[in-house]
Amino acid sequence: MTVATARPAISADLVRQHIDRAASLLPTYAAQGVLFFRKSNILGFTGVPLEPSDRLVCGLLNADGRIAFVVPAFEVEMAGNLPTGSELVAWEENDDPYAATAEAARLLGIDRAAILLDGQTWLSAHARLQTALPMARLTTDPGLIDTIRVTKSDEEIAAIRAACEDTAKIFPLVSQRLRAGITEADLAREVMESLAKAGVSGFGHLIQGGESASVPHQPTGQRRFLNGDGVIVDFVAQRDGYLGDMTRTFAVDGISEELRQAYSVVREAQRAAIRTVRPGIACQEVDRAAREVIERAGLGDYFSHRLGHGIGLDVHEPPYLVAGNPTLLEPGMCTTIEPGVYVPGRFGIRIEDVIVVTHDGCEVLSKATPTDVSEAFE
Amino acid sequence: MTVATARPAISADLVRQHIDRAASLLPTYAAQGVLFFRKSNILGFTGVPLEPSDRLVCGLLNADGRIAFVVPAFEVEMAGNLPTGSELVAWEENDDPYAATAEAARLLGIDRAAILLDGQTWLSAHARLQTALPMARLTTDPGLIDTIRVTKSDEEIAAIRAACEDTAKIFPLVSQRLRAGITEADLAREVMESLAKAGVSGFGHLIQGGESASVPHQPTGQRRFLNGDGVIVDFVAQRDGYLGDMTRTFAVDGISEELRQAYSVVREAQRAAIRTVRPGIACQEVDRAAREVIERAGLGDYFSHRLGHGIGLDVHEPPYLVAGNPTLLEPGMCTTIEPGVYVPGRFGIRIEDVIVVTHDGCEVLSKATPTDVSEAFE
Repeated sequence: MTVATARPAISADLVRQHIDRAASLLPTYAAQGVLFFRKSNILGFTGVPLEPSDRLVCGLLNADGRIAFVVPAFEVEMAGNLPTGSELVAWEENDDPYAATAEAARLLGIDRAAILLDGQTWLSAHARLQTALPMARLTTDPGLIDTIRVTKSDEEIAAIRAACEDTAKIFPLVSQRLRAGITEADLAREVMESLAKAGVSGFGHLIQGGESASVPHQPTGQRRFLNGDGVIVDFVAQRDGYLGDMTRTFAVDGISEELRQAYSVVREAQRAAIRTVRPGIACQEVDRAAREVIERAGLGDYFSHRLGHGIGLDVHEPPYLVAGNPTLLEPGMCTTIEPGVYVPGRFGIRIEDVIVVTHDGCEVLSKATPTDVSEAFE
Repeated sequence: MTVATARPAISADLVRQHIDRAASLLPTYAAQGVLFFRKSNILGFTGVPLEPSDRLVCGLLNADGRIAFVVPAFEVEMAGNLPTGSELVAWEENDDPYAATAEAARLLGIDRAAILLDGQTWLSAHARLQTALPMARLTTDPGLIDTIRVTKSDEEIAAIRAACEDTAKIFPLVSQRLRAGITEADLAREVMESLAKAGVSGFGHLIQGGESASVPHQPTGQRRFLNGDGVIVDFVAQRDGYLGDMTRTFAVDGISEELRQAYSVVREAQRAAIRTVRPGIACQEVDRAAREVIERAGLGDYFSHRLGHGIGLDVHEPPYLVAGNPTLLEPGMCTTIEPGVYVPGRFGIRIEDVIVVTHDGCEVLSKATPTDVSEAFE
């Protein structure tokens, strides 16, 4: 068959790294196999850009670092870039896909072994897996997958940096177009069209002005920008499987002194948090560093979400920079740092960058983009 | 707070219908509550357009037809249109969301009761729910939710018909722009931009020409259309929570006689299947009716997928028109009828419409759009 193969969805070297790390960790978890179910885990550990739907797709790994992939027969071409030595088990529309999964486990020699199931495996799939693999010991992965994903290799850091470069491309486009009178939706459409033409793969965006920006995740809507608005622009771009996530806050003409001051507080909170990041500091301490700045300014009640989240193959993944999280940061962890202030019914501000923890502090992977995108905030 | 409320994501009447049907079915399942986890179930049974991510969102229902909704505190405005009498339990970023879920169950009086869990609940969530609700009897829903969703009320049929009207808007746009030399990706971008301007909410699309069309779900790519191509255009639009799903096959100048004949076979297979649909016929029989036509023409090996799938709040949901499925069709069931022929490395053809089973046959909900969109196929 001569179907043109698209560019791989993720680098084959990175997939191999993940597989080898997972295989080497299996003894620590007293297991002989892993089943990957969640989209980002299937991509990261098998290289295949597919996910379960009403049709089962999953990946299995054994301690030799071999993969078996279960896929609907009519989508088999999309699993064409499997790692060397992999098994492919295709099931026809009227086959039992869980019998196919049992066959995949048999091919890897783990059909009577301890298999860790991806934590996002569905209950309904679990029941059918147990029936199809009666001699296997299926348990929910207590953390093998997260352990591998939470610290990034140099290649992964480079991939996230590249995704941030794509993410940052939204801000000049917004600068050129943002003005009183147009709607959030129209601005978003124009900007996303330009990004698509530039080859940027958008993974999610929020453009919110004025009082709409005071609800952190409210979708972009029909509100028209007004003079005096603060405008939150939050964008996630994807390149080669990895994600970048950045937010900037713009000003439309004639912002209030209150908005300007609140912006300064958020900017200072972000700087304080970034100065705090180093190996060995707890996630909750980094959150605290930003929160203290905002609390000192009397705006603590308006910083209603955590400071940040890990990023990589998922836009939100461990570690989470949140009160109550004692996890210690380690070199190679990548997170957002995104303090915000949201005054209900009035305005919202957020500034978000992506950092990587280094051996003695951190590097801002999105540092090529200035923090202040509107003169009013400089 | 004066945050503008967006148009509801689904009609409140439909949500109430679903709730009342679920509550009335609970005794049949010896249960006192249901937990909704999957995006489409949360929407359909609570009206809230949110889904679980790294932050837990879920809905609970009791036998009185009351809802309790669990949501991150900073997204609470997005759960603003809950059904009358509902409880809202918001959890802060450093709270345990499963403790919030236990509180929601307590408010509904089901924290010591039998609760059916959405089949797509994650294993990791299940473990934490069991810990937070030690006295509840949590079991995977054996089919209460599906039983309600699989047959559609008149209002739901109207919603799916409306979504099909939006879906059909892609075809004239493709007709105007399709020509040899442009790429699939460029055509898709232009068409999706026009649809967005027309207010059509796209949920998924595939545009595939020539040999690329021979892989049914291969994403739209960089291939340039050539004279003689068959071009599959598959589009899913969403309106008010419900989905429409249609496919047409276009021709670029100068198609071969082989392609033209294969197209005629697919069209005849679709007609044969539609003629077969009536209450009491098995899903597998409808699949068979289409497959026989294609097999008689010697193309049976190239019809590599099932004939169709149910559609509603999800693009693929029960019932599935597939070999081996003995489910009997009932009035109100809505499915696609989408035979295809895919000759590897050469061409692909698919024609897809949405039907609803009526008391004596079926109605094609997408019938306003002609089957043949290119003169070469008429």
